[in-house]
Amino acid sequence: MTGLRTDLYELRMAASYLRHDLTAPATFSLFARRLPDSRGFLVAAGLDEALTFLETFSFDDDELAYLRDNHGFDEPALAALAGLRFTGDVRAVPEGRVVFADEPLLEVTAPLAEAQLVETGLLNVITFQTTIASKAARCRLAAGGAELIDFAFRRTHGLAAGAGVARASAIVGFAATSHVEAARQYGLRPSGTMAHSYVEAFPDERAAFRAFAVDFPDNPIFLVDTYDTPAGVQAAVDVLTELGRSGPAGVRLDSGDLAALARQARTILDAAGLTQVQIVASGGLDEDVIAGLVAAGAPIDGYGIGTRMGVSSDAPSLDSAYKLVTYGDRPVVKLSPGKVTLPGAKQVFRDPAGSGGDVIGLHTEPSPPGREPLLVSVMRGGRRLDTVAAAEAVRVARDRFEADLAWLPESARRLAEPVPPAVTVSSELAGLHERVAAAARSGRTTTQSG
Amino acid sequence: MTGLRTDLYELRMAASYLRHDLTAPATFSLFARRLPDSRGFLVAAGLDEALTFLETFSFDDDELAYLRDNHGFDEPALAALAGLRFTGDVRAVPEGRVVFADEPLLEVTAPLAEAQLVETGLLNVITFQTTIASKAARCRLAAGGAELIDFAFRRTHGLAAGAGVARASAIVGFAATSHVEAARQYGLRPSGTMAHSYVEAFPDERAAFRAFAVDFPDNPIFLVDTYDTPAGVQAAVDVLTELGRSGPAGVRLDSGDLAALARQARTILDAAGLTQVQIVASGGLDEDVIAGLVAAGAPIDGYGIGTRMGVSSDAPSLDSAYKLVTYGDRPVVKLSPGKVTLPGAKQVFRDPAGSGGDVIGLHTEPSPPGREPLLVSVMRGGRRLDTVAAAEAVRVARDRFEADLAWLPESARRLAEPVPPAVTVSSELAGLHERVAAAARSGRTTTQSG
Repeated sequence: MTGLRTDLYELRMAASYLRHDLTAPATFSLFARRLPDSRGFLVAAGLDEALTFLETFSFDDDELAYLRDNHGFDEPALAALAGLRFTGDVRAVPEGRVVFADEPLLEVTAPLAEAQLVETGLLNVITFQTTIASKAARCRLAAGGAELIDFAFRRTHGLAAGAGVARASAIVGFAATSHVEAARQYGLRPSGTMAHSYVEAFPDERAAFRAFAVDFPDNPIFLVDTYDTPAGVQAAVDVLTELGRSGPAGVRLDSGDLAALARQARTILDAAGLTQVQIVASGGLDEDVIAGLVAAGAPIDGYGIGTRMGVSSDAPSLDSAYKLVTYGDRPVVKLSPGKVTLPGAKQVFRDPAGSGGDVIGLHTEPSPPGREPLLVSVMRGGRRLDTVAAAEAVRVARDRFEADLAWLPESARRLAEPVPPAVTVSSELAGLHERVAAAARSGRTTTQSG
Repeated sequence: MTGLRTDLYELRMAASYLRHDLTAPATFSLFARRLPDSRGFLVAAGLDEALTFLETFSFDDDELAYLRDNHGFDEPALAALAGLRFTGDVRAVPEGRVVFADEPLLEVTAPLAEAQLVETGLLNVITFQTTIASKAARCRLAAGGAELIDFAFRRTHGLAAGAGVARASAIVGFAATSHVEAARQYGLRPSGTMAHSYVEAFPDERAAFRAFAVDFPDNPIFLVDTYDTPAGVQAAVDVLTELGRSGPAGVRLDSGDLAALARQARTILDAAGLTQVQIVASGGLDEDVIAGLVAAGAPIDGYGIGTRMGVSSDAPSLDSAYKLVTYGDRPVVKLSPGKVTLPGAKQVFRDPAGSGGDVIGLHTEPSPPGREPLLVSVMRGGRRLDTVAAAEAVRVARDRFEADLAWLPESARRLAEPVPPAVTVSSELAGLHERVAAAARSGRTTTQSG
């Protein structure tokens, strides 16, 4: 069903591996080569969908016929693909955890062809969701205690991406999403107010606000900037007063000088005794705009953050890679300029006390005293080790993020010119890399022991 | 099935409209408020998927139960949503056509609640695909006559986005895609070579190239930068010579100084009499890198363009909007700072001779002599007027793009600091806007005739 959701070269390589009996287990490592300039850390996300992708990876008859008729795949290759399922093992950093450049987010060990075929899908899912979670985390850092709402769905990269954005932003502490289907799927709180069209469809602003307050008496939020913002706030005050409402309500500012308008709105609301009415801001927000509003002391209680978070506008992708690190008992490297890889299956050892930076070592190394290994087994023989409901997975990931955020040094948390903590390579891994790279340069190969 | 693929506020507004008998036809206009800095034009894309979205928009029982149980939708609202289908009319700019800021890409006329509910989905689909097509068009402009291949799937925003990128880049003339499922779906040419892991899985580079050339005798393309690029090119030469191959083949450069390496590779290949072997470049490419390579006279025959095109890295979204312009017989405007809208259903009148800029007028205006209207009817009463196969839709859109590209002035085509042609507003539309805005400011409303 999903077998063609891959790059053509994966299929061609897989067929060739099978023909040449290259069927030994291979380990591939998925990691970010470097952090975007403005990132002091990444938030691991996408693992749940990645495991679902692995569990369902297979070829149906139509897909096999397409490969036969259009790409010259012969019967032995088609027969091998027809029966192919992902039967490998996966170790990964759990969703919500903070990671840095070069640290494996995920490692796959499986017969070579299987591990190769899933490259495109795994890279895609992990890169996208980690990109968005990392951007959304910066919005969270900027907002202080204010509530954050995901408003991104209308400009994410396609309809399906909207749900990924809702989920990734929920992991880093967004309180709600406008995306109803994503809210249902992941157990999130959906949130929604009104659009300018609602105001315009009524004869005037007051009529629109009155109808809305009657129809949605629990916490109605009025969009006040359609014609003139202070007049819109006054209209909201008048309607709430007229209806005798003293419960939760809000006004939303969506354009103009948000700090100044928020102060004006607060003054108007307080003068009317409506101190409980909250102010929500939206419209072109990102972490930098929010940080500016917070620094200016703007009395804003919540932020609706859309496009810039949902496409991670300043860094819409990661320089992620999925690289072969071991084939059979042979560790391998790549020496391409600027893209050198480290050999062998790996582990990341973290100091929970926070004084020492992370150490990337070999999977087979013992954990140094007092260090916590980040990668855990999540799939064995093609089956997940742990199945939790979609909503529970998000909640657990959010808890992990909260704990790691508390651990993260200020230098990595700050928005401007953040500096990630030092990540070093263990002496065992460094030694192996030296031997394998020297052998590759000389055209020889080496084995794990060599 | 798709009804919850929307923002919560659309559902709340729709329920409220129905309760207040606001059921007159409304026209919404979808357009980009401004072009990103580096864009001289946009390429309309996404209409085919947008129409499918409209045709399939509906609520199933589970979705209605979710709204009842979690959001307090009452029985009349649920009954209205249960039977709701999109029954409206759509006029749109056909895919592949070149457009500019403020020009409607699409206009929807439907009973208010229907037109409101589909806002999020329409904005999402059109914004995403138009963003990518417009970025890919710049790569096309940079590459001169070289062949372009979409390599983006691994880092698009989720698995579904990969197919959208393959399609959008095909519309602007990309020759092939690595994405197999997208190739099958849209009748594109799939393309694929080998990864570094393939080279590493064999005992040495020559063994890998030999196996690949035997397995894929038609136009094998060897990835030559795993260890050392000139040595890799020589290995490709040796294997082709050893196998007596003189047909189509290629080498792919994926790292390092691509211009210098391409020259070195060309020299090695030509010295061996392999003048037919092509050179393909990949790795972090975008229009600026490609323009640099072309300017340097690098002997590169094809480019594999991935992430930066697939996420439109410098401008990953558009400032798009879906705005109410008429309700019943009443044209409406929004006066929010920086986001003022023009009232009324519109048409764009283009001068095919190219000497005069586009004019945005009212839909009801007669086309000025010699001018071509850009928006055409594509859906009436909720049904498409024209159904073509997916592959045919892409081919036709590509033809439209080729024609519009030939029409586009050089000032808008250039990569650096492009200047879009002037777009003016007809005197009829300007007059209407003045009257409606004055009325809105004074709190009165107006009608089409007023």
